[in-house]
Amino acid sequence: MIEFWYEFGSTYSYPAAMRVERLAAEAGVVVEWRPFLLGPLMHAQQGLTDSPFNAFPIKGEYMWRDLQRVCDQEGLPLVHPSQFPRNGLLAARVAICGLEDGWTPAFSRAVYQANFVEDQDISRPEVLAPLIASVGAGPDEILALAATESIKSRLKDHVRQAQERGLFGAPSFVTADGELFWGNDRLEQALAWAVRHQDSEQA
Amino acid sequence: MIEFWYEFGSTYSYPAAMRVERLAAEAGVVVEWRPFLLGPLMHAQQGLTDSPFNAFPIKGEYMWRDLQRVCDQEGLPLVHPSQFPRNGLLAARVAICGLEDGWTPAFSRAVYQANFVEDQDISRPEVLAPLIASVGAGPDEILALAATESIKSRLKDHVRQAQERGLFGAPSFVTADGELFWGNDRLEQALAWAVRHQDSEQA
Repeated sequence: MIEFWYEFGSTYSYPAAMRVERLAAEAGVVVEWRPFLLGPLMHAQQGLTDSPFNAFPIKGEYMWRDLQRVCDQEGLPLVHPSQFPRNGLLAARVAICGLEDGWTPAFSRAVYQANFVEDQDISRPEVLAPLIASVGAGPDEILALAATESIKSRLKDHVRQAQERGLFGAPSFVTADGELFWGNDRLEQALAWAVRHQDSEQA
Repeated sequence: MIEFWYEFGSTYSYPAAMRVERLAAEAGVVVEWRPFLLGPLMHAQQGLTDSPFNAFPIKGEYMWRDLQRVCDQEGLPLVHPSQFPRNGLLAARVAICGLEDGWTPAFSRAVYQANFVEDQDISRPEVLAPLIASVGAGPDEILALAATESIKSRLKDHVRQAQERGLFGAPSFVTADGELFWGNDRLEQALAWAVRHQDSEQA
Protein backbone atom coordinates (compact mmCIF):
# COMPACT_ATOMS: atom_id res chain seq x y z
CA MET A 1 0.00 0.00 0.00
CA ILE A 2 1.06 3.54 -0.71
CA GLU A 3 -0.73 6.80 0.07
CA PHE A 4 -0.70 9.27 -2.81
CA TRP A 5 -1.17 12.81 -1.48
CA TYR A 6 -2.00 15.34 -4.16
CA GLU A 7 -3.30 18.89 -4.61
CA PHE A 8 -5.20 19.89 -7.74
CA GLY A 9 -3.37 23.19 -8.13
CA SER A 10 0.05 21.54 -7.88
CA THR A 11 2.01 21.22 -11.11
CA TYR A 12 4.09 18.14 -10.33
CA SER A 13 1.00 16.39 -8.98
CA TYR A 14 -0.21 16.26 -12.60
CA PRO A 15 2.40 13.81 -13.96
CA ALA A 16 2.29 11.90 -10.66
CA ALA A 17 -1.48 11.41 -10.95
CA MET A 18 -1.06 10.19 -14.51
CA ARG A 19 1.76 7.76 -13.62
CA VAL A 20 0.96 6.40 -10.17
CA GLU A 21 -1.57 3.66 -10.97
CA ARG A 22 0.47 2.15 -13.80
CA LEU A 23 3.73 2.06 -11.85
CA ALA A 24 2.03 0.86 -8.67
CA ALA A 25 0.32 -1.96 -10.57
CA GLU A 26 3.67 -3.02 -12.03
CA ALA A 27 5.09 -3.09 -8.50
CA GLY A 28 2.07 -4.89 -7.05
CA VAL A 29 1.28 -2.00 -4.71
CA VAL A 30 -2.21 -0.65 -3.97
CA VAL A 31 -2.65 3.14 -4.17
CA GLU A 32 -4.77 5.11 -1.71
CA TRP A 33 -5.66 8.45 -3.29
CA ARG A 34 -5.52 11.27 -0.75
CA PRO A 35 -6.60 14.66 -2.11
CA PHE A 36 -5.63 17.50 0.21
CA LEU A 37 -4.97 21.25 0.20
CA LEU A 38 -1.40 22.49 0.17
CA GLY A 39 -2.16 26.16 0.83
CA PRO A 40 -2.87 25.81 4.58
CA LEU A 41 0.35 23.86 5.10
CA MET A 42 2.51 26.29 3.14
CA HIS A 43 1.01 29.20 5.03
CA ALA A 44 1.49 27.58 8.43
CA GLN A 45 4.99 26.26 7.74
CA GLN A 46 6.56 28.92 5.54
CA GLY A 47 4.29 31.94 5.84
CA LEU A 48 3.48 31.74 2.14
CA THR A 49 0.21 33.17 0.82
CA ASP A 50 0.93 32.26 -2.81
CA SER A 51 2.70 29.43 -4.61
CA PRO A 52 6.46 29.59 -4.04
CA PHE A 53 6.71 29.44 -7.82
CA ASN A 54 4.97 32.83 -7.97
CA ALA A 55 6.61 34.25 -4.84
CA PHE A 56 10.07 33.42 -6.23
CA PRO A 57 9.89 33.89 -10.02
CA ILE A 58 13.31 32.38 -10.68
CA LYS A 59 12.10 29.10 -9.16
CA GLY A 60 8.85 29.38 -11.09
CA GLU A 61 10.61 29.88 -14.41
CA TYR A 62 12.72 26.79 -13.79
CA MET A 63 9.74 24.74 -12.59
CA TRP A 64 7.75 25.29 -15.79
CA ARG A 65 10.75 24.33 -17.89
CA ASP A 66 11.47 21.25 -15.78
CA LEU A 67 7.79 20.25 -15.81
CA GLN A 68 7.78 20.52 -19.61
CA ARG A 69 10.77 18.14 -19.77
CA VAL A 70 9.10 15.73 -17.33
CA CYS A 71 5.88 15.73 -19.36
CA ASP A 72 7.78 15.36 -22.65
CA GLN A 73 9.55 12.32 -21.25
CA GLU A 74 6.24 10.78 -20.15
CA GLY A 75 4.45 11.67 -23.39
CA LEU A 76 2.03 13.89 -21.45
CA PRO A 77 0.64 17.05 -23.03
CA LEU A 78 1.15 20.28 -21.08
CA VAL A 79 -0.32 23.73 -21.59
CA HIS A 80 0.84 26.47 -19.23
CA PRO A 81 -2.42 27.44 -17.45
CA SER A 82 -3.45 31.07 -17.88
CA GLN A 83 -4.06 31.15 -14.11
CA PHE A 84 -1.70 29.58 -11.56
CA PRO A 85 -2.24 28.13 -9.11
CA ARG A 86 -5.91 27.38 -9.60
CA ASN A 87 -8.06 26.89 -6.50
CA GLY A 88 -8.52 23.15 -6.03
CA LEU A 89 -10.89 23.32 -3.05
CA LEU A 90 -14.10 22.27 -4.81
CA ALA A 91 -12.36 19.63 -6.91
CA ALA A 92 -10.80 18.16 -3.75
CA ARG A 93 -14.20 17.97 -2.06
CA VAL A 94 -15.65 16.24 -5.11
CA ALA A 95 -12.71 13.83 -5.18
CA ILE A 96 -13.47 12.92 -1.56
CA CYS A 97 -17.04 12.06 -2.63
CA GLY A 98 -15.74 9.38 -4.99
CA LEU A 99 -13.52 7.47 -2.58
CA GLU A 100 -16.12 4.85 -1.61
CA ASP A 101 -17.41 4.31 -5.17
CA GLY A 102 -13.90 4.19 -6.61
CA TRP A 103 -14.11 6.96 -9.20
CA THR A 104 -11.67 9.32 -7.45
CA PRO A 105 -8.62 8.32 -9.54
CA ALA A 106 -10.38 8.77 -12.91
CA PHE A 107 -12.01 12.02 -11.78
CA SER A 108 -8.70 13.35 -10.46
CA ARG A 109 -6.91 12.60 -13.74
CA ALA A 110 -9.73 14.41 -15.58
CA VAL A 111 -9.29 17.46 -13.34
CA TYR A 112 -5.53 17.57 -14.04
CA GLN A 113 -6.27 17.24 -17.75
CA ALA A 114 -8.70 20.18 -17.48
CA ASN A 115 -6.24 22.36 -15.54
CA PHE A 116 -2.92 21.58 -17.23
CA VAL A 117 -3.96 20.63 -20.77
CA GLU A 118 -7.27 22.36 -21.49
CA ASP A 119 -6.61 25.46 -19.36
CA GLN A 120 -10.03 25.30 -17.71
CA ASP A 121 -10.91 26.93 -14.39
CA ILE A 122 -11.27 23.89 -12.15
CA SER A 123 -12.61 26.01 -9.30
CA ARG A 124 -15.95 26.35 -11.14
CA PRO A 125 -18.78 23.80 -10.65
CA GLU A 126 -19.77 24.04 -14.32
CA VAL A 127 -16.26 22.93 -15.28
CA LEU A 128 -16.32 20.02 -12.85
CA ALA A 129 -19.85 18.83 -13.75
CA PRO A 130 -18.93 17.15 -17.07
CA LEU A 131 -15.85 15.61 -15.42
CA ILE A 132 -18.09 14.08 -12.75
CA ALA A 133 -20.43 12.79 -15.46
CA SER A 134 -17.47 11.35 -17.37
CA VAL A 135 -16.71 8.96 -14.52
CA GLY A 136 -20.31 7.80 -14.28
CA ALA A 137 -21.50 9.84 -11.29
CA GLY A 138 -24.32 12.38 -11.14
CA PRO A 139 -23.03 15.96 -11.27
CA ASP A 140 -25.96 17.61 -9.45
CA GLU A 141 -26.02 15.02 -6.70
CA ILE A 142 -22.24 15.02 -6.22
CA LEU A 143 -21.88 18.82 -6.26
CA ALA A 144 -24.60 18.99 -3.59
CA LEU A 145 -22.86 16.30 -1.57
CA ALA A 146 -19.52 18.14 -1.91
CA ALA A 147 -21.08 21.16 -0.23
CA THR A 148 -22.15 19.25 2.90
CA GLU A 149 -20.40 19.60 6.25
CA SER A 150 -19.62 15.89 6.19
CA ILE A 151 -17.49 16.15 3.04
CA LYS A 152 -15.92 19.47 4.07
CA SER A 153 -14.95 17.85 7.33
CA ARG A 154 -13.39 14.85 5.60
CA LEU A 155 -11.21 17.13 3.49
CA LYS A 156 -10.15 19.00 6.62
CA ASP A 157 -9.23 15.62 8.10
CA HIS A 158 -7.02 14.95 5.08
CA VAL A 159 -5.24 18.27 5.56
CA ARG A 160 -4.70 17.47 9.23
CA GLN A 161 -3.41 13.99 8.43
CA ALA A 162 -1.05 15.48 5.86
CA GLN A 163 0.38 17.76 8.54
CA GLU A 164 0.71 14.83 10.95
CA ARG A 165 2.70 12.90 8.34
CA GLY A 166 5.17 15.77 7.92
CA LEU A 167 4.04 16.79 4.45
CA PHE A 168 5.07 20.20 3.13
CA GLY A 169 4.61 19.77 -0.62
CA ALA A 170 2.76 17.86 -3.31
CA PRO A 171 2.74 15.29 -4.61
CA SER A 172 3.88 13.22 -1.65
CA PHE A 173 3.86 9.49 -1.04
CA VAL A 174 3.66 7.75 2.34
CA THR A 175 4.25 4.03 2.77
CA ALA A 176 2.54 1.77 5.30
CA ASP A 177 5.51 2.09 7.66
CA GLY A 178 5.28 5.90 7.56
CA GLU A 179 8.15 6.69 5.18
CA LEU A 180 7.61 10.01 3.40
CA PHE A 181 8.65 10.74 -0.18
CA TRP A 182 8.16 14.17 -1.74
CA GLY A 183 7.85 14.83 -5.45
CA ASN A 184 6.82 13.14 -8.67
CA ASP A 185 10.48 12.19 -9.12
CA ARG A 186 10.40 10.10 -5.93
CA LEU A 187 7.48 7.89 -7.01
CA GLU A 188 9.68 5.02 -8.16
CA GLN A 189 11.68 5.07 -4.90
CA ALA A 190 8.51 5.23 -2.82
CA LEU A 191 7.11 2.17 -4.60
CA ALA A 192 10.39 0.28 -4.20
CA TRP A 193 10.33 1.12 -0.49
CA ALA A 194 6.71 -0.06 -0.21
CA VAL A 195 7.64 -3.38 -1.81
CA ARG A 196 10.70 -3.88 0.42
CA HIS A 197 8.78 -3.07 3.61
CA GLN A 198 5.57 -5.00 3.03
CA ASP A 199 6.20 -7.02 6.20
CA SER A 200 5.58 -4.01 8.39
CA GLU A 201 2.29 -3.49 6.59
CA GLN A 202 1.07 -6.96 7.54
CA ALA A 203 2.27 -6.63 11.13
CA MET B 1 30.23 19.15 -22.08
CA ILE B 2 28.29 19.82 -18.92
CA GLU B 3 28.84 22.48 -16.27
CA PHE B 4 28.57 21.15 -12.72
CA TRP B 5 27.70 24.00 -10.33
CA TYR B 6 28.19 23.13 -6.68
CA GLU B 7 28.40 24.71 -3.24
CA PHE B 8 30.43 23.11 -0.46
CA GLY B 9 27.79 23.70 2.19
CA SER B 10 25.04 22.14 0.06
CA THR B 11 23.89 18.69 1.10
CA TYR B 12 22.72 17.33 -2.26
CA SER B 13 25.91 18.63 -3.89
CA TYR B 14 27.71 15.89 -1.92
CA PRO B 15 26.24 12.85 -3.76
CA ALA B 16 26.34 14.81 -7.03
CA ALA B 17 30.07 15.49 -6.63
CA MET B 18 30.68 11.82 -5.90
CA ARG B 19 28.63 10.63 -8.91
CA VAL B 20 29.16 13.17 -11.66
CA GLU B 21 32.51 12.04 -13.11
CA ARG B 22 31.55 8.37 -13.29
CA LEU B 23 28.19 8.98 -14.95
CA ALA B 24 29.58 11.63 -17.29
CA ALA B 25 32.38 9.29 -18.38
CA GLU B 26 29.82 6.57 -19.13
CA ALA B 27 27.88 9.08 -21.24
CA GLY B 28 31.00 10.40 -22.96
CA VAL B 29 30.45 13.91 -21.58
CA VAL B 30 33.19 16.20 -20.22
CA VAL B 31 32.48 17.85 -16.84
CA GLU B 32 33.44 21.45 -16.07
CA TRP B 33 33.54 21.88 -12.29
CA ARG B 34 32.11 25.24 -11.24
CA PRO B 35 32.34 25.92 -7.50
CA PHE B 36 30.16 28.86 -6.46
CA LEU B 37 28.42 30.33 -3.42
CA LEU B 38 24.70 29.78 -3.01
CA GLY B 39 24.20 32.21 -0.11
CA PRO B 40 24.31 35.43 -2.19
CA LEU B 41 21.78 34.01 -4.67
CA MET B 42 19.37 32.80 -1.99
CA HIS B 43 19.57 36.15 -0.25
CA ALA B 44 19.01 38.14 -3.43
CA GLN B 45 16.26 35.91 -4.80
CA GLN B 46 14.37 34.78 -1.71
CA GLY B 47 15.54 37.07 1.07
CA LEU B 48 17.00 34.10 2.93
CA THR B 49 19.86 34.62 5.38
CA ASP B 50 20.11 30.93 6.35
CA SER B 51 19.62 27.63 4.58
CA PRO B 52 15.94 27.04 3.76
CA PHE B 53 16.42 23.71 5.52
CA ASN B 54 17.04 25.64 8.74
CA ALA B 55 14.53 28.42 8.05
CA PHE B 56 11.78 25.82 7.45
CA PRO B 57 12.48 22.90 9.82
CA ILE B 58 9.84 20.62 8.29
CA LYS B 59 11.69 20.80 4.97
CA GLY B 60 14.99 20.28 6.77
CA GLU B 61 13.79 17.19 8.57
CA TYR B 62 12.64 15.68 5.28
CA MET B 63 15.83 16.68 3.46
CA TRP B 64 18.09 14.84 5.91
CA ARG B 65 15.94 11.72 5.64
CA ASP B 66 15.83 11.91 1.85
CA LEU B 67 19.58 12.56 1.67
CA GLN B 68 20.17 9.47 3.82
CA ARG B 69 18.13 7.38 1.39
CA VAL B 70 19.98 8.86 -1.60
CA CYS B 71 23.35 8.12 0.00
CA ASP B 72 22.28 4.62 1.04
CA GLN B 73 21.28 3.88 -2.54
CA GLU B 74 24.66 5.12 -3.82
CA GLY B 75 26.64 3.35 -1.11
CA LEU B 76 27.88 6.70 0.20
CA PRO B 77 28.51 7.20 3.92
CA LEU B 78 26.71 10.13 5.55
CA VAL B 79 27.14 11.69 8.97
CA HIS B 80 24.81 14.55 9.86
CA PRO B 81 27.25 17.46 10.35
CA SER B 82 27.18 19.04 13.80
CA GLN B 83 27.08 22.42 12.05
CA PHE B 84 24.89 23.16 9.02
CA PRO B 85 25.40 24.73 6.64
CA ARG B 86 29.16 25.11 6.91
CA ASN B 87 30.79 28.13 5.30
CA GLY B 88 32.26 27.01 1.99
CA LEU B 89 33.91 30.30 1.02
CA LEU B 90 37.54 29.32 1.61
CA ALA B 91 37.06 25.85 0.14
CA ALA B 92 35.49 27.38 -2.98
CA ARG B 93 38.44 29.75 -3.39
CA VAL B 94 40.86 26.84 -3.04
CA ALA B 95 38.83 24.82 -5.55
CA ILE B 96 39.20 27.69 -8.04
CA CYS B 97 42.99 27.48 -7.58
CA GLY B 98 43.00 23.91 -8.86
CA LEU B 99 41.07 24.41 -12.10
CA GLU B 100 44.14 24.83 -14.35
CA ASP B 101 46.12 22.00 -12.76
CA GLY B 102 43.13 19.66 -12.74
CA TRP B 103 42.93 18.78 -9.05
CA THR B 104 39.64 20.58 -8.39
CA PRO B 105 37.44 17.44 -8.68
CA ALA B 106 39.56 15.35 -6.28
CA PHE B 107 39.90 18.24 -3.83
CA SER B 108 36.16 18.95 -3.97
CA ARG B 109 35.29 15.33 -3.25
CA ALA B 110 37.70 15.44 -0.29
CA VAL B 111 35.97 18.55 1.07
CA TYR B 112 32.56 16.88 0.85
CA GLN B 113 33.99 13.82 2.60
CA ALA B 114 35.33 16.10 5.36
CA ASN B 115 32.03 17.97 5.77
CA PHE B 116 29.47 15.19 5.39
CA VAL B 117 31.33 12.10 6.59
CA GLU B 118 34.05 13.26 8.99
CA ASP B 119 32.11 16.25 10.39
CA GLN B 120 35.07 18.60 10.02
CA ASP B 121 34.81 22.39 9.84
CA ILE B 122 35.69 23.01 6.21
CA SER B 123 35.80 26.78 6.77
CA ARG B 124 39.16 26.39 8.58
CA PRO B 125 42.49 26.50 6.69
CA GLU B 126 43.98 23.82 8.94
CA VAL B 127 41.20 21.45 7.89
CA LEU B 128 41.70 22.21 4.20
CA ALA B 129 45.53 22.01 4.28
CA PRO B 130 45.76 18.18 4.40
CA LEU B 131 43.06 17.95 1.73
CA ILE B 132 45.14 20.19 -0.54
CA ALA B 133 48.19 18.04 0.17
CA SER B 134 46.19 14.88 -0.59
CA VAL B 135 45.70 15.99 -4.20
CA GLY B 136 49.39 16.75 -4.67
CA ALA B 137 49.36 20.52 -4.25
CA GLY B 138 51.22 22.66 -1.68
CA PRO B 139 48.93 23.77 1.16
CA ASP B 140 50.87 26.91 2.13
CA GLU B 141 51.22 28.09 -1.43
CA ILE B 142 47.60 27.35 -2.35
CA LEU B 143 46.12 28.90 0.80
CA ALA B 144 48.14 32.05 0.07
CA LEU B 145 46.96 32.03 -3.54
CA ALA B 146 43.35 31.56 -2.40
CA ALA B 147 43.61 34.81 -0.43
CA THR B 148 44.63 36.90 -3.46
CA GLU B 149 42.33 39.35 -5.16
CA SER B 150 42.71 37.39 -8.39
CA ILE B 151 41.18 34.22 -6.95
CA LYS B 152 38.54 36.10 -4.95
CA SER B 153 37.54 37.83 -8.16
CA ARG B 154 37.29 34.57 -10.08
CA LEU B 155 34.92 33.14 -7.46
CA LYS B 156 32.82 36.30 -7.67
CA ASP B 157 32.72 35.75 -11.44
CA HIS B 158 31.39 32.24 -10.85
CA VAL B 159 28.63 33.59 -8.62
CA ARG B 160 27.73 36.18 -11.25
CA GLN B 161 27.72 33.54 -13.99
CA ALA B 162 25.50 31.32 -11.84
CA GLN B 163 23.00 34.18 -11.56
CA GLU B 164 23.16 34.80 -15.31
CA ARG B 165 22.33 31.14 -15.95
CA GLY B 166 19.23 31.32 -13.75
CA LEU B 167 20.58 29.18 -10.93
CA PHE B 168 18.81 29.28 -7.56
CA GLY B 169 20.04 26.07 -5.93
CA ALA B 170 22.82 23.53 -5.83
CA PRO B 171 23.85 21.28 -7.35
CA SER B 172 22.88 22.50 -10.80
CA PHE B 173 23.92 21.36 -14.24
CA VAL B 174 24.03 23.48 -17.39
CA THR B 175 24.53 22.00 -20.84
CA ALA B 176 26.37 23.64 -23.76
CA ASP B 177 23.07 24.88 -25.20
CA GLY B 178 22.16 26.56 -21.90
CA GLU B 179 19.65 24.04 -20.54
CA LEU B 180 19.46 24.19 -16.73
CA PHE B 181 18.91 21.19 -14.46
CA TRP B 182 18.61 21.54 -10.69
CA GLY B 183 19.33 18.82 -8.19
CA ASN B 184 21.37 15.67 -7.80
CA ASP B 185 18.31 13.76 -9.01
CA ARG B 186 18.47 15.54 -12.38
CA LEU B 187 22.06 14.51 -13.16
CA GLU B 188 21.06 11.60 -15.40
CA GLN B 189 18.61 13.76 -17.37
CA ALA B 190 21.16 16.54 -17.74
CA LEU B 191 23.71 14.10 -19.17
CA ALA B 192 21.14 12.59 -21.54
CA TRP B 193 20.29 16.12 -22.71
CA ALA B 194 23.98 16.93 -23.21
CA VAL B 195 24.41 13.81 -25.34
CA ARG B 196 21.30 14.54 -27.44
CA HIS B 197 22.29 18.17 -28.06
CA GLN B 198 25.98 17.81 -28.81
CA ASP B 199 25.44 19.38 -32.26
CA SER B 200 24.69 22.75 -30.71
CA GLU B 201 27.95 22.47 -28.79
CA GLN B 202 29.94 22.07 -31.99
CA ALA B 203 28.07 24.87 -33.75
